[in-house]
Amino acid sequence: MLAEVRGINEECGVFGIWGHPEPAALSYYGLHALQHRGQEGAGIVVTDGERLRAVKGEGLVNDVFSNGKLDKLEGHAAVAHVRYATAGGSGIENVQPLLFNSTTGSLAIAHNGNIVNATRLKRNLEQQGSIFQTTSDTEVLAHLIKKSKLATFEERAKQALSLLEGAFAVCILTDHGMLVAQDPQGMRPLSLGKLGDAWVVASETNAFDIIGAELVRSIDPGELLIINNDGCRSTRYVEKKDRAICTMEYVYFSRPDSDIDGINIHMARKRLGKQLAKEIQIEADVVTGVPDSSISAAIGFSEASGIPYELGLIKNRYVGRTFIQPSQDLRERGVKMKLSPVNQVVKGKRVIMVDDSIVRGTTSRHIVKLLKDAGATEVHVVISSPPLKNPCFYGIDISSDSELIAANNSVDEIRKLIGADTLTFLSVEGMVEAIGRSDEEKNCGHCLACFTGEYPTDIFSDTKLPHEKEFVR
Amino acid sequence: MLAEVRGINEECGVFGIWGHPEPAALSYYGLHALQHRGQEGAGIVVTDGERLRAVKGEGLVNDVFSNGKLDKLEGHAAVAHVRYATAGGSGIENVQPLLFNSTTGSLAIAHNGNIVNATRLKRNLEQQGSIFQTTSDTEVLAHLIKKSKLATFEERAKQALSLLEGAFAVCILTDHGMLVAQDPQGMRPLSLGKLGDAWVVASETNAFDIIGAELVRSIDPGELLIINNDGCRSTRYVEKKDRAICTMEYVYFSRPDSDIDGINIHMARKRLGKQLAKEIQIEADVVTGVPDSSISAAIGFSEASGIPYELGLIKNRYVGRTFIQPSQDLRERGVKMKLSPVNQVVKGKRVIMVDDSIVRGTTSRHIVKLLKDAGATEVHVVISSPPLKNPCFYGIDISSDSELIAANNSVDEIRKLIGADTLTFLSVEGMVEAIGRSDEEKNCGHCLACFTGEYPTDIFSDTKLPHEKEFVR
Amino acid sequence: MLAEVRGINEECGVFGIWGHPEPAALSYYGLHALQHRGQEGAGIVVTDGERLRAVKGEGLVNDVFSNGKLDKLEGHAAVAHVRYATAGGSGIENVQPLLFNSTTGSLAIAHNGNIVNATRLKRNLEQQGSIFQTTSDTEVLAHLIKKSKLATFEERAKQALSLLEGAFAVCILTDHGMLVAQDPQGMRPLSLGKLGDAWVVASETNAFDIIGAELVRSIDPGELLIINNDGCRSTRYVEKKDRAICTMEYVYFSRPDSDIDGINIHMARKRLGKQLAKEIQIEADVVTGVPDSSISAAIGFSEASGIPYELGLIKNRYVGRTFIQPSQDLRERGVKMKLSPVNQVVKGKRVIMVDDSIVRGTTSRHIVKLLKDAGATEVHVVISSPPLKNPCFYGIDISSDSELIAANNSVDEIRKLIGADTLTFLSVEGMVEAIGRSDEEKNCGHCLACFTGEYPTDIFSDTKLPHEKEFVR
Amino acid sequence: MLAEVRGINEECGVFGIWGHPEPAALSYYGLHALQHRGQEGAGIVVTDGERLRAVKGEGLVNDVFSNGKLDKLEGHAAVAHVRYATAGGSGIENVQPLLFNSTTGSLAIAHNGNIVNATRLKRNLEQQGSIFQTTSDTEVLAHLIKKSKLATFEERAKQALSLLEGAFAVCILTDHGMLVAQDPQGMRPLSLGKLGDAWVVASETNAFDIIGAELVRSIDPGELLIINNDGCRSTRYVEKKDRAICTMEYVYFSRPDSDIDGINIHMARKRLGKQLAKEIQIEADVVTGVPDSSISAAIGFSEASGIPYELGLIKNRYVGRTFIQPSQDLRERGVKMKLSPVNQVVKGKRVIMVDDSIVRGTTSRHIVKLLKDAGATEVHVVISSPPLKNPCFYGIDISSDSELIAANNSVDEIRKLIGADTLTFLSVEGMVEAIGRSDEEKNCGHCLACFTGEYPTDIFSDTKLPHEKEFVR
Repeated sequence: MLAEVRGINEECGVFGIWGHPEPAALSYYGLHALQHRGQEGAGIVVTDGERLRAVKGEGLVNDVFSNGKLDKLEGHAAVAHVRYATAGGSGIENVQPLLFNSTTGSLAIAHNGNIVNATRLKRNLEQQGSIFQTTSDTEVLAHLIKKSKLATFEERAKQALSLLEGAFAVCILTDHGMLVAQDPQGMRPLSLGKLGDAWVVASETNAFDIIGAELVRSIDPGELLIINNDGCRSTRYVEKKDRAICTMEYVYFSRPDSDIDGINIHMARKRLGKQLAKEIQIEADVVTGVPDSSISAAIGFSEASGIPYELGLIKNRYVGRTFIQPSQDLRERGVKMKLSPVNQVVKGKRVIMVDDSIVRGTTSRHIVKLLKDAGATEVHVVISSPPLKNPCFYGIDISSDSELIAANNSVDEIRKLIGADTLTFLSVEGMVEAIGRSDEEKNCGHCLACFTGEYPTDIFSDTKLPHEKEFVR
Repeated sequence: MLAEVRGINEECGVFGIWGHPEPAALSYYGLHALQHRGQEGAGIVVTDGERLRAVKGEGLVNDVFSNGKLDKLEGHAAVAHVRYATAGGSGIENVQPLLFNSTTGSLAIAHNGNIVNATRLKRNLEQQGSIFQTTSDTEVLAHLIKKSKLATFEERAKQALSLLEGAFAVCILTDHGMLVAQDPQGMRPLSLGKLGDAWVVASETNAFDIIGAELVRSIDPGELLIINNDGCRSTRYVEKKDRAICTMEYVYFSRPDSDIDGINIHMARKRLGKQLAKEIQIEADVVTGVPDSSISAAIGFSEASGIPYELGLIKNRYVGRTFIQPSQDLRERGVKMKLSPVNQVVKGKRVIMVDDSIVRGTTSRHIVKLLKDAGATEVHVVISSPPLKNPCFYGIDISSDSELIAANNSVDEIRKLIGADTLTFLSVEGMVEAIGRSDEEKNCGHCLACFTGEYPTDIFSDTKLPHEKEFVR
Repeated sequence: MLAEVRGINEECGVFGIWGHPEPAALSYYGLHALQHRGQEGAGIVVTDGERLRAVKGEGLVNDVFSNGKLDKLEGHAAVAHVRYATAGGSGIENVQPLLFNSTTGSLAIAHNGNIVNATRLKRNLEQQGSIFQTTSDTEVLAHLIKKSKLATFEERAKQALSLLEGAFAVCILTDHGMLVAQDPQGMRPLSLGKLGDAWVVASETNAFDIIGAELVRSIDPGELLIINNDGCRSTRYVEKKDRAICTMEYVYFSRPDSDIDGINIHMARKRLGKQLAKEIQIEADVVTGVPDSSISAAIGFSEASGIPYELGLIKNRYVGRTFIQPSQDLRERGVKMKLSPVNQVVKGKRVIMVDDSIVRGTTSRHIVKLLKDAGATEVHVVISSPPLKNPCFYGIDISSDSELIAANNSVDEIRKLIGADTLTFLSVEGMVEAIGRSDEEKNCGHCLACFTGEYPTDIFSDTKLPHEKEFVR
Repeated sequence: MLAEVRGINEECGVFGIWGHPEPAALSYYGLHALQHRGQEGAGIVVTDGERLRAVKGEGLVNDVFSNGKLDKLEGHAAVAHVRYATAGGSGIENVQPLLFNSTTGSLAIAHNGNIVNATRLKRNLEQQGSIFQTTSDTEVLAHLIKKSKLATFEERAKQALSLLEGAFAVCILTDHGMLVAQDPQGMRPLSLGKLGDAWVVASETNAFDIIGAELVRSIDPGELLIINNDGCRSTRYVEKKDRAICTMEYVYFSRPDSDIDGINIHMARKRLGKQLAKEIQIEADVVTGVPDSSISAAIGFSEASGIPYELGLIKNRYVGRTFIQPSQDLRERGVKMKLSPVNQVVKGKRVIMVDDSIVRGTTSRHIVKLLKDAGATEVHVVISSPPLKNPCFYGIDISSDSELIAANNSVDEIRKLIGADTLTFLSVEGMVEAIGRSDEEKNCGHCLACFTGEYPTDIFSDTKLPHEKEFVR
């Protein structure tokens, strides 16, 4: 139950549109579809061919664009962003899309992911006299583009992108076109769509559904799309590497109605649940899922195991960001928070509780206790992914492994810590097979680093430094 | 799908606590559990034995009590309220609990329901020189109490309550005690609980769960509880009438984790779904429910019919009150709002769509179209309640029957209007049996007025007028 | 320097208009002219002949009516109010005009002054079952009107007004007319004006100037004006008593550009300064006034004495309500607040500092110190009114005499306490003569209670109680 | 009456302090003293030796720093700013002090004045790859410092400052020291003070008075002060040029209690009034000044001419930024705004109205009409400065001469346009003499450009371009 640990749902969401008379309104609806990917800030930058205009703010999409703020964003193209701070601190200046006005051409950038060599690049640029406005890793891309001496904007963008390492699905808007790039491993989802004559890009395909656009295809690793009034042209800024899509997008992050590379998230999760039911054998009376992200896996588990699926846990939808936490005293007296058990469903029952993951284990322990206090005779925890043992450097907020319970404990130790009668994790192979991506590529096309420790990019090396230095001199 | 039509979830929620050192904090958590019953305003009034203090505001519980506002509410007892405006207009002065300061004894009132003779009573009182502060029907109760010449507060309250007609579950707080009353038919749910030595009352039992309180029992029709430092004493202000609990509380209003008279809402809804599957026979590939209120019935239908249950529709959780509506043009281009279909689930499938009710039919038509546009080959709509043919005068916001599609159309006409392949409503008998209340009382202890037109109280007569006049002279 | 002590300028301001197509806008400008009389809240109630509509809020006029809030106030008549809380606590419910909706006729009341028997009247009404909405003394008037059994609204209003004691300049608006009443002694200023065909009333005549209206005359003590579409008719609700206009209106409260009974405030203050110069003989180099209220007197003193007038003290205009007070430490290090001396003006000079009054003496001591620290060799304080020895019960916020330095100290003791070289108060006779009201009436038509202790009304007696009881039974 | 035309009082105010334990609080009080110099935004940046922290916002000082925002600004030094937008647009990013974080050393800049070659410098820098964050002319200074290859921060700052042309009184804060620079002509006031061991700088000396600091001296043209824990060291970044202090600081901008180069503003204005009385001979009954800036001159005129000084005009203090403007219709009916005449003072009188300047003439015409409508038989306008004929490029918001009535009309034409009986401007020589600066330097040490058209710097030439290009390559 990753969301509960991190206190916020997920990472970031990117949206872009070119060639439509209402780019701001469509971006607004698109951001709603992506809202689960980031709730700390939102922004839309529009161009009318002469000027980039931004509306940005901290908070939810609904709040940021209230009171007619969209009305002043007239134009024919936009990039937009919802933000969960994976790199850089909070503060309005870090809310994306970042907008850079310049007499040599203004540009706006929306970015999902994390550039792992950003600190080194930034230090280098500052030593050359550049001044940064934000603490965001995304800003280095703008400076690299502006510093490049190559002739065209496309060449300058390619040179800049080629210097970045890590995960980056980016959308760059200028008055003359929109550039859409995927990192060399394609770690974050990014899709291209069509809405009439307009081109659309989004982190998740459900953003296409909400505005009635058609999915065209996923953006390729290392691909750069040039979208402007001449249409959409595909090119590359770097050779394609093995695809390494973040597995957690399937397990937990993305919304059930989205597809990644043709695979629907809800269906994949249901298969994860079915796979779990294949890998273990538990006698129980009811299956219940931890809302919202584990519902699909629980339904799958129920279907494959034949044990009835019930609403054993209810999410308190209104417990928002400003919720007043109960005092320790009240907590001990039993004040419940985000989840409530349904007593009549679990009382006297052997319960299978399906969850998507265990990070620190505190939430799982809390839920097991809720169910037992409500009268469950047994609680069997089944997790629709393998143990999380390694930190993520690509945009998921688990930056130190000290908090990962599975990094330091065996499965049975975790079971005892969370108070479950049994605890089962899905196998890596079972997970990869259930998700169902084709097997042609190494790692099955997944980034499995948080499970296996095998990172698809250099994380710490300085091998690119000489090249960078040369460039940004 | 009643909520969508009315644009807000439900009616009102009442909470009260006596004899606890943190009444404001517990009221706050209790109101969170009741938040689905009213999202327009919230308030808490606390007494420390000397003075009633209120914090009230428009909006959600989280917003109203932000920024340490609860800190000034010290005492040992509280009444609290979340509001959906069933009677009276909007405006902060109508947010409950209503608080009346007086040198003859201050009092606060929290009320769920609708007093059907309030207008007549108010006119009468104004002719005697009384001045009203609100447009709420609840205020008449305060004036009637204050106008009574009887000796004790209990007697005055009983006299006042006996003059009211309609639905009222009320909680009255003074510096000396808390009075809790249920209307003569017990139309709205109201339960008594215990938290250590403290007494608690709430519209729904899930408010007890969230604070760790134990359910004691439901409040009886016509019952008046006197709760103070001497304990909790039960008395009556009127003879008990046939119980007529609002059926829609089971079908739609209450939260799945609440119980009414010992019957869990989720289980009752699941039985409604199973009953539906018994009453009809449809060949189909998947069952899906309209989130959130119809999920339980859909699971029940799936279990009884053997047709797999899927997430065919996803609710956009962040489409809140301030959501900017798409223009007609954008709507026609396909911009979707609160619900999105999951394409891969419904494409090429015969879909059974379970919903709780049909009011105007516009929402049902919209959802059927969503599913067909997403590729469903057939859409069979099954409704887990009978057709809504009559307005409600007891606190549900359907005050004119002109908007009720079932009041003027046959089932087949409705089917055509909403574009479904088949349309099935649950029978009244099937519904009553599935809910499972014991049969000893007339109407099976339900108010079925919105389905049958048989109202459990006088709605329009003036028979009580002479008595009232005598009293309020 | 009364304002500094009380932290706010003055009491309340009342405005009313009947028979104009833009009553809300004109009220808004009128309230601006009266803003100095109350800065805690403001409100406007308008009638269109069918309904009273209010916009009210806490804070300054500019803030309360921002964002187009006036636009919804369409009609042909209005009453309006700026508030400084003389009776009743703070809170939006106490912001005037108080508005009472009723099926027997709605009404709104704006009141300047203080009803000294309000508590007794309120207790009586509550014992009869009335419920009060505010803690304002003004509300009793509404209840008394509503309780009256007399035939017409005019008769009911007269009966109600006749029961009040104290200071009250009131403006009552209904859908059918505007009633304007002055208390029997005429203690607060209230004038009638004409703007084309429309009738206007205001606490100060500068409100007429700002909207281009003509002054007609002052409202008489005990007079009741009935203003409606038939015109303006004068009647009485009580026999006229000796006029007792608050002297402090001339000395300190009213704005220099207003006239009371034909006497301009600036000119009266200048004469007070000249009279001071006649009563004493001081050798000095410069005369300076404490801004803003003492500037006129200082100019008068300078003119009569021949000693040059200088800007020796500057007011920091932006030190508003939210100003962060310096810590004790910073204050001792010399951080100055609302007033700054002009060093080059006072350095090495013998300074005559003219102020309007001394309440607690702390401000005077502070200013004397400022001037001496800035290099003044002598500071001679001259006060353009006699010593304040008694509390005011008629709307000025000095309710206990413990804080009045002159109640407990001789002039020389005060001089020592404030650190002045000499201290001179104006004589009562000199003040009355300088103001220049005609002498036909007792007390020269002034309320001099705060100076002499002779109150023009019963303050504590219960003589009216039997009559009230009879009435409000 | 320059303020009325420009809708805002003046330009900007700068404050800095080094070596005090409460730099934020003292900056706050200092900014209050400077608030009249800019009301659009305010900011304070503090250093604790390790990190620069900022609190900035749009609006008044009181609002920007409300709610405990200062508490997080702990340290020992600060720079602060109040802003009136003379260059660059509005927007929070332009509110000063500008703060630039960098791994090569963070810095904050507060600037009063206008850099006339900023556009050219910025274009040049952008062509080298620099990205600007604001539209403020001030930002070029930061980029020039960061781009400099010289060894020390002091050298880099000197090189950067030497490239600037125009008016700039700047205060630069780093974690290691505070740099204070005055432009080569010393066009804007900037003074050095001492508060115990702490060093203070401020645009006006009244900021020293409010915090109890002592004035040390004015900063010299072309001077650069290096203030750090070793003390305050004076150096130069450019050769001193002829002093050209803005004359309007004396006539209109600065506060009466400030001194510039030892000359008190109130006293200077009084002498301007006396000089006017010497230059003309008018028979009249009263002298009145347009509040607030012309009061001193009016008092001086009265003293010299023997005609009594009166409060003929009252400023409506509460007519703030959000004031709702009367409709054309209401304006024609006589609704008055910021100024009200005192009828009894001017009725039947020959009035001398003293003002500081005439820009477009509309305000003067309005005031003359106010006085005549109030009954003045004659209105003689006397202006305490010469006709404004040329735009200012150094920080005063008169950027085009089309709006200057004196640029296109003779004095008599202006007289007719404003409806005065006579109109008199002060002579340039009279003004310079009355202000009283010593005469050793060319232009008497004044910038008289707006009167004479002789600008003290190159405004349009490109002579510095080659040098710049070389530098910023």
